Formats: sequence, C-alpha cells, structure tokens
Amino acid sequence: MKSQKSIDPAVLELLPKAALDGAETVWDRHEAQQPQCGFGSLGVCCRHCVQGPCRIDPFGTGPKKGICGANADTIVARNLLRQVAGGAAAHVDHAYEAVEALELAANGEINYTITDETKLQQIARGFGLEISGKSKAELALEVVEVAYADLANHGNKPVQWLMANAPKERIAVWKSLGILPRNPDREIREAMHQTTMGMDADPVNLVLATAKQGLVDGYSGLKLATDMQDILFGTPTPVVTEANLGVLKEDYVNLIVHGHVPLLSEKIVYWAGKLQEEAILAGAKGILVSGICCTGNEVLMRKGIPLVTNFLAQEIAIVTGAVDTMIVDVQCIMPSLTQVASCYHTEIVTTMPIVKLPGATHVPFTLESADETAQEIVRKAITSYGRRDSKKIKIPNYKRKIMAGFSVEAIIGALSAVDPDQPLKPLVDNIVNGNILGVVATVGCNNVKVTQDFMHVELVKELVKNNVLVVATGCSAHALAKAGLMNSEGTETYAGEGLKAVLCAIGQAAGLGAPLPPVLHMGSCVDNSRIGDLVTAIAAYLNVDTSLLPVAASAPELQHEKALSIGTWAVTMGLTTHLGVVPPVLGSKAVTELLTNGLTDVIGGKFYVETDPLKAAQGLLEDIRAKRKKLGLPN
Amino acid sequence: MKSQKSIDPAVLELLPKAALDGAETVWDRHEAQQPQCGFGSLGVCCRHCVQGPCRIDPFGTGPKKGICGANADTIVARNLLRQVAGGAAAHVDHAYEAVEALELAANGEINYTITDETKLQQIARGFGLEISGKSKAELALEVVEVAYADLANHGNKPVQWLMANAPKERIAVWKSLGILPRNPDREIREAMHQTTMGMDADPVNLVLATAKQGLVDGYSGLKLATDMQDILFGTPTPVVTEANLGVLKEDYVNLIVHGHVPLLSEKIVYWAGKLQEEAILAGAKGILVSGICCTGNEVLMRKGIPLVTNFLAQEIAIVTGAVDTMIVDVQCIMPSLTQVASCYHTEIVTTMPIVKLPGATHVPFTLESADETAQEIVRKAITSYGRRDSKKIKIPNYKRKIMAGFSVEAIIGALSAVDPDQPLKPLVDNIVNGNILGVVATVGCNNVKVTQDFMHVELVKELVKNNVLVVATGCSAHALAKAGLMNSEGTETYAGEGLKAVLCAIGQAAGLGAPLPPVLHMGSCVDNSRIGDLVTAIAAYLNVDTSLLPVAASAPELQHEKALSIGTWAVTMGLTTHLGVVPPVLGSKAVTELLTNGLTDVIGGKFYVETDPLKAAQGLLEDIRAKRKKLGLPN
Repeated sequence: MKSQKSIDPAVLELLPKAALDGAETVWDRHEAQQPQCGFGSLGVCCRHCVQGPCRIDPFGTGPKKGICGANADTIVARNLLRQVAGGAAAHVDHAYEAVEALELAANGEINYTITDETKLQQIARGFGLEISGKSKAELALEVVEVAYADLANHGNKPVQWLMANAPKERIAVWKSLGILPRNPDREIREAMHQTTMGMDADPVNLVLATAKQGLVDGYSGLKLATDMQDILFGTPTPVVTEANLGVLKEDYVNLIVHGHVPLLSEKIVYWAGKLQEEAILAGAKGILVSGICCTGNEVLMRKGIPLVTNFLAQEIAIVTGAVDTMIVDVQCIMPSLTQVASCYHTEIVTTMPIVKLPGATHVPFTLESADETAQEIVRKAITSYGRRDSKKIKIPNYKRKIMAGFSVEAIIGALSAVDPDQPLKPLVDNIVNGNILGVVATVGCNNVKVTQDFMHVELVKELVKNNVLVVATGCSAHALAKAGLMNSEGTETYAGEGLKAVLCAIGQAAGLGAPLPPVLHMGSCVDNSRIGDLVTAIAAYLNVDTSLLPVAASAPELQHEKALSIGTWAVTMGLTTHLGVVPPVLGSKAVTELLTNGLTDVIGGKFYVETDPLKAAQGLLEDIRAKRKKLGLPN
Repeated sequence: MKSQKSIDPAVLELLPKAALDGAETVWDRHEAQQPQCGFGSLGVCCRHCVQGPCRIDPFGTGPKKGICGANADTIVARNLLRQVAGGAAAHVDHAYEAVEALELAANGEINYTITDETKLQQIARGFGLEISGKSKAELALEVVEVAYADLANHGNKPVQWLMANAPKERIAVWKSLGILPRNPDREIREAMHQTTMGMDADPVNLVLATAKQGLVDGYSGLKLATDMQDILFGTPTPVVTEANLGVLKEDYVNLIVHGHVPLLSEKIVYWAGKLQEEAILAGAKGILVSGICCTGNEVLMRKGIPLVTNFLAQEIAIVTGAVDTMIVDVQCIMPSLTQVASCYHTEIVTTMPIVKLPGATHVPFTLESADETAQEIVRKAITSYGRRDSKKIKIPNYKRKIMAGFSVEAIIGALSAVDPDQPLKPLVDNIVNGNILGVVATVGCNNVKVTQDFMHVELVKELVKNNVLVVATGCSAHALAKAGLMNSEGTETYAGEGLKAVLCAIGQAAGLGAPLPPVLHMGSCVDNSRIGDLVTAIAAYLNVDTSLLPVAASAPELQHEKALSIGTWAVTMGLTTHLGVVPPVLGSKAVTELLTNGLTDVIGGKFYVETDPLKAAQGLLEDIRAKRKKLGLPN
C-alpha cells in the first residue's frame, strides 16, 4: 500500500487536479524530502547547543558520543522529552485559554454562556466544592479558581485536576515512580531545563520525566480542556451528519473551520446561521460550515457540523475550488495552505497571535470581540464566494453518513436504556461474557509516511471483526468516519457477531431503531480525556487497576508532538499503546527497551510499534486476550 | 589559531597527560564529530514532528520546503525560538528555586539566613512595599509573594519583576512591539506551543516571540535569580583570590563545585571549613574548595573561593589526578565527566533530581537537608582523598591573581570614594570626556569550535587597549581571569592611557592602593542582570534610552541555549550584541537579516556576528564611536 497516497477516493480523485492546477501537496513535498535523514529518524541527532549539531553513528565506525559526551541513550531520551513537552505545552495552552474563557464568561465580560450546568456541578463536586445556593457563574468561578491554583502552586502538591480525576491505583503508581506532576507550567519549564546542554544524561530519569509530561498532558491539557469546553458549550450528545469532501456544496458559501479550538468556531457556526440571508443575496443558497481536524471535531460533536476531511487532505479541500474561506486557529495548520489557496479563490484567515502564515489574512480573534470577528469572517467568506472560478470547481461525490457525539455521558445515556441503575453493567457484562472482547481507542493524526487512512481503517476493521469495540478521536475518527465505520451499516458490514449483537441491543434499547456504530466517535484530540474517563469509570466499576483491563490504545498514523504526549499519557494509564509509525527513538536500544518493555512492570503500560495494520491488530488482540486471561475471562 | 585547542597553558600542559591516561576529552569528541551536519549548522533541519525529519537545501536544487510546507525562514525561526525558550527555562527554573529557598528561609523551615537586609529592602521598595516595622522575614515573604504573583498571573498583566526594574523607555518599546511578557511560565509554555507542527510560520512573528523569551530570561530568570541570591547569601563585595588549575593543592583534599546554583555550594564551602580537622586526620593539610563554571563564580563572588577553570576544561581539571570529588548541580555538566573520572580516583557527585549521570554517585540535595548533604559530600571528598594515586597527580603551575566581586553595589561603592553624592558621576564624566570610550560586557561560554579562551582574551585585550571598560561574567570572566586581565597588573599591561588613568584614580580613592582591574568580574551568568542594572542606572542618570549608550555586549564563545537567550535579552535592551560563533540561523536570509539589522530600527539592538576577535573588536569600537557621535561625545 506504500505506493498509494491515500485510500480516500475523494482525495485520489482530486490529486490529478491538484497537479493540473499547479497546487503542490504534502505528498509532493514528502517525495522531495526523500531520503530523510537517518540520524534524525533514529533520534540520534542533537542540536541543543551551539557546539553541535552532533550525530551518533548507529553502526559502529563513527562517533558514539556527542561533543559534550552525551551518548545515543541521552540524546534520544532528551529529544523525546522535549517533543513530549511540546505536545503537553500545546494542550495545556489550549486548556488554559478555555479556563480564561470560562472565567470571563462567568464574570459576564464576554458573550459566551455557561451551557452545561450539570457538568459544571459534577466537576465542582469532584473537587469537593459546595454546590447548593450558588449561581452557575459563582460555581464556575470556583472551578476556575481550582484550575488556576494548579498554576499558582509553588510547592510539591500534585496537580489537583489529576488528583480529583485519575484512578487512585494509578496515582499510587505514579507517586511511587516520582512522576506525579506539580504545577503543569513548572513541569514544562523544568523539562526544557532538563534537556538543555549539561543537564540530565540518565535515560531512565529522562524517560520518567517524559512519563510525567504525559500526565501533564492528560490532566492539565486534555482533561481540563474538555471539562472547560463542555461547561461552556455543552457536553456532546449523539448527532448524525456526514463526512468527506462530498459534504461541500457547490451552490453554498463554503466556510471551513480548521484547527483545534472551539472558542471561535462556535461563534462562526452561530453567525453562519444568522447571516444566511446575506449569502442568499450574494447569489448562494446559503452558508455551509464544515470542519477539518479537531476544530471540525469540536463543532461536529456539539453542533452536528459535517467533516470535510482530516489532516493530510487539508490542502485537497482547497483543490475542490469550492472553499471560499478556510479559517484556522491553532495546531496542524500546514504552512502550505496559503500557497495552495493562491491557485484558487480561497482566502485563508488566521486568527491567533501565535499562528500567522505569510500570505494569509490575519483577523485577530479575542474573546471580547468574538461575535464581531466571527461576523467579519463569515462576511469575508460571502465576499470570497463572489470571486469563485466555476471552471476550477470539482467536488468529489464521496461522503458517508456518520453518528458522532459519544461523550462518556452520551454512552452512559445509551447504556442507561438497558440498565438505568447500573449503566456500565451492560457494557461490562458483555466484556466479561466475551461478546465484546475488549476496547481499543484509536487516536491521532495522519502521517504522510503512511497511505492516508490506511492504517486506521485496516487496523480497526480487523479489530471490530474480532469483536473489539473501538472508540476514536481526532484524525483517526475522521478516517474511520470517511470509511463508513461510524454508522449502523458499518456494524452490519464489519462487526463480529458478538459485538454486533451488543451494538444492536443497545441501539434498540436507546430508541435509535438501528445498531450503534462499531466505532464510537468520542471527539477531538483533547477529548481523549473522555476515553480516559471511560476507562477510569470501568476500572472503578470493576474495582481493578486500569492496567488490568482488556483495553488498549493506538495512534496508527501519528505525526504531531501532541500524539507523542497523548500516547505517553496512555502508557502511564497502564495501557498498551500501539504506534503505527516508528517514533525517532530506535537509535537507543536502552530507550527503545524502556518504552516498549522495560517500564511495563512498574507502570503497567507500554508502547508497541508495528507498521503493518493486520499484524498490529493481531498484537493488540493478543494483548487483550492476555489481559482477559489474567482476569479469568473467556477468550 | 584554529589548530590550537586552548590558549590556557595549564590546559595545554595536561592535554598530553589526558591522552596518556586514556581520558577522552571534548576536543577528541569534537574531532570525531567532523564534519558536522551542514543542515543543522544552518538551522534548516526540522524534527518537530514524526513526518520529518525535514531539511531545506540551501543551494537551490533540493527541497525549499519541509513536508508541512514550512520553508527555511519558518524552520530557522522556529528552531531559534525553541532554543531561546530552553535557555530562558533554565534561568527561570534556577530563579524560582531561589525564590522557594527565600520563602522557606523566611519561614524558618530551612537553615539558611537572610544575609542582605539592605538589598531586601531596596528590592521591596522597588515594588512599592512598605518597609518600616517589618522583620526581615516578613519583608522577605512579601517579596516572595511578588515573585510568585508573576507565575499566578493569568491575565495580560506584564511580569512585575520586569516592570519594576527595566528602563521605562525600554518598556515602552517592548509594549509597542507586543513583546512584554506576561507570566514567564506561560510564555515558555506558549513558545513550545508556537513551535509545534502547524503553528506559526511567520518569521517576523517568531523572531518577536524570541525577543519576548529574551525578556523572560532577563527579568524572570537572571534578575530574579540574582536578587534572591543576594538577599540570601549577600551582595558581593570585592574579593581577591586566584584562578586556573594551579589553585589546586596536592596536599589538600580538593573538592570542586561545578554547575550554576549557590544553594548547595554555599553549604559546601561552610562545611569544608568546619570539617578541616577530619581532613587533617585523614592525612591532608586541609580541604580546598574551588569552582568551575557559574557555581564557581557564585562562591568566588561572595566567598573568595578560587576558580579552577571554565567550561571547556572541566574534564582537564580531573586529569590533574588531584580532584577528590567534583560535585555538580545544574547546567553545563559534560556527561563525559564520569568517564574521565573513571581514569582517576575522582568521584563525581550529582545532587539534583533533573541531573543524573550514569556512573556518578547521586546524593539528593534538598533545601531541608542541605547541611547534612553538604557534610556527607565533604566527607566523601575526604574519603576519596585516601584513594588517590600519587603517580597520576600533575597540577600545572599556572594561576593568576584576580580581584572579583564587582556587583553594581560594589562598583558604586568604589565610585563613591570619588563622589559620594553622585557615585555614577565619575564613571559617566569619564565616558563623556572620552577617557573611557565605552563599556563592553563579555559574557557566556567556551565553545570547542573556538580555541579555548582565545576569542574572549584577544577581543578584550583590543577593547581595553582602546580604553573600553570591560565587565564580564560566566566563563568569559574565567577566561579573562586566567589571562591576567582581572588584576591591577592587567591594567598596567593592557589598558589604554585614558582607561588606565580612571582605573588608577578610582583604585586610589577606594583605598585599594592599586588600580582597579581593566575587566570587572560581575559574577555568574545569571549575574548578567548586574550588567543590566548598571546599564539601566547609567541610562537613568543620563536620562537617555539604553540603546543610545556607548555600551555593547559580546558572547565571544557562546555554546549554550542560555547564551542565546541572554544575548537575545541584551538585544532587547538596545545593545549591539556580538557573537563570536555563528548561531544556526544562516539558512534563512530573512531571519539573519531580522536579527542582525532588520529589527534595529524598532528595538535599538542587533546581533553582530564576527568570528575574528580583532575584527570583532573593531566592529564594536565602531559601534561605540557611532553612538558617541550621536550623543555628541568626542571620539
């Protein structure tokens, strides 16, 4: 499959058009970059000081140490720690902007409302806050105070967002390893310090510090971001919509939201609705908002906004010639977008102070001016619609129906239809009796090194065929949505008998009139916290450590530093975590061994690297079966 | 000079012994690393995501963009921002550990006293705190509160440590550029976020963010660390001691403190004094503590502890065979130390949780157990003395007398002997009349790419010959100390006539009975804040912006990310900042132009890269003369 660029038929249809239109794509640039540097690929290149760059010869004739004396183990571990800290920093930054938004909203300083009071109360209760007699705003400010207290913690007290939400057994493990994070910002700062020249040279110490960054990401990034966003915008409930480039409509103003944060895109969705008339006056039938990457997932989960495509095809969306404006916020925004857009009429709008693209229009977004900014951008899209070149428009006729919106609350809601008193019981009973063999969470990116979506889809097909329930987020969810694994037909087509029976029963009981899909879309990358919550809830229900559950994680096509930090968090949660692309660690046997085996005894989880999807599925199935066996469950 | 490894005769004497003893050194490893990667050297290698590594071909036939679409400008600027953030993180981490120490000391929870109440009051007054009627401890806790408030700041309020200490004119410039840092930790987190895949692609935006990190370093790193350390351990006053390997004594227990933080080394110095008897019982004449790198500078400045050597010769110190224990804390600790030590009896003791070296003895240091830890380590050194192999001992007979301890307070103290009412007047008058042409601060590291100390010494000799007063910190100060530029004889030998007259007059008036040295040792790398304070004071006295002063900075042999962040801060202060080693930016014309020219109109300062010391001196002299001319001063 390596010779093929994508398994997505819409992408394959448009690639020749891209070439014809002179639009260079990520695949072209990947080809131009071959061969990629072997030192960097193995993680044995160091550029942390101006005496370097240094390289370790992995074969035996060249240098085994950098100029300072750092060997391959130190260099690989240091690079990995810095990468994972980068991922954690991205999510913590995201989360605290959401905290800031909740604070301003509660103070009435911005035009955002607190949508989900139930979630707010549930979170407040988790911190032992008194609920009664308080307004939404008062309670929100108390929750904000807890979040800020983590950053204002100058002592050794661990992160409160972790302590209140993580499984007690896990906390004990992390404490024994000395990796309970204190203040998340302090830990990121310390990781940067720890990786400068002349600091840590001990790969074990560095890998443990990396695990700590995983926890920073998991609780002060993912969990905090999801909690804040659910309070502000509502906890997702099942929605039905469509995915793939075919969702674009030639006769509508097409406005794509792309990035990772819902703060602006929620407003875009609102104002696109309000300003339909202006679009009609401009000759369109209306305004269609659709999404790419996790901003797309956020507005999909809460508003039913259709998904255009995932990371690797963000340029291809523009090649349709039908995208009037693409508005980007943060993360995974290819700098190439402006160049592709220059081949068409598409306007790229950047909005955040730390994401500017030469050639894009920058419309600064602030929470205070969110409504004005959103209106301005929607109107830009309407104007842009008037600049279209109809000869350049080609929208591939591919899209799939998807059901999404599976927050933990939504899953428990569906299960409550079967057993209102113990909603987790039907799920757990079916895991125990073997109808469901186990649960695998597929997460993360596309990576141009892999045929787009291939790893995601082939892995998951094999898993669900073997009665594994799959939950998905991020670009993995997009891939599975586009492949038809997120609707009831997918259950009929792909699910094994046991899994199918359970999905049908729950679907019936929940009044869907059809089976649940074999893959439950749980949201954006920060919504991996929802997967963590689900695992935590199941472990608590069974009163076992998460590392004993027949549950695993996979980032089949990981690309971003965020994927590395999320994966690290999953390992700290005790999960076997599959990576379908080799991370840059193979240059150190010691680090590779620690990550894939050496730490398992103490931390429960491990990384499992396998680039063949069917072999990876077999590996995960074996892992699940081994865990079932340990629990005394039938295989 | 490139073929020579060092100009330090002590190092040159021991290099053949190192080879004979089988001790591999930094020069060996540098040779083995040749040729170094051209992509990395130019800054056009990116490893921020798992699609990479990517490389830009700087010549024209290969790829001009990474896989994501980032071009050379984006990649170079992103790499630089991450490196400068690493440097800032190191200093902020250092500073806040000192804040923590002051807090615990003020609360009586650790056995550290508040030594300098005058400095404490001066700092408190800077924040508008009421002084009268408060105990040292009460006031210290209020100052600690201000420092912590910067980290607990979740809004857009700028760093208070900056606002209270930076020149008002500079603050206005930084504000207009949007680079006033808010919470230092938030800025470091944001820089990491900003440099992950799919974020900022705008080199101007990235370079401005880099400038912001420079300010984080300057005020929440350097300035804060120095302030806390002066309060705790006292503000330096002139001390006289010696520098170079000849300070080691064959018949003493030799304990070297190496790293950057005085928290433990102050205790080591204290307990080495107390435990002399035990050393004598073990057959030695006593215990000699000496220092390397900035821990060395810290205890030199406050305790008159001799300097052994600087960064590049840290291994060579061990090659004397006379070092019983080398105790390291943080930063610039070559991972190779344990391997060199294994050729001798030397024990390497690591002490910090984020600095472990395989093969070293780890004795965990905590503030609470500082006295016990210090005693344990001093006794380790005494025990280690008993394991010496006398055949392997060779202490080169090279050392120079040095006068150090030139805090701003000490400089003003000396100047007060000339004019008690306006202490800065004698200095400024002599700058105005041209006896002193200007001031250059030389700072930073050794770098193995340069003959050790050569750039520092040749540059400074040329400057002082041309009547430039030089102030120095860090490994630059070590180099100049070893070369005899930090004693009165150095003034006789090297200073131009005008400068010599001034240094003689001040030396006489201050009762030294000899001239001040031509280079004033202002301390460790964090003590670059003292240089900032001096520049700020002179600018305030003259009521001009710092960028107008005939003052420049130079990092002749920069190596560490900290040097990049310190240099960036110097540029934001409006200073022309010379770099004697080319930083990895040349792969982007746009970034190189911004750093060396493009930002000068708006920020006042610029980087000036010149690898020849005499040419660099000429360049700096021209810069100083141009500034004098603008001020209407004679040249």
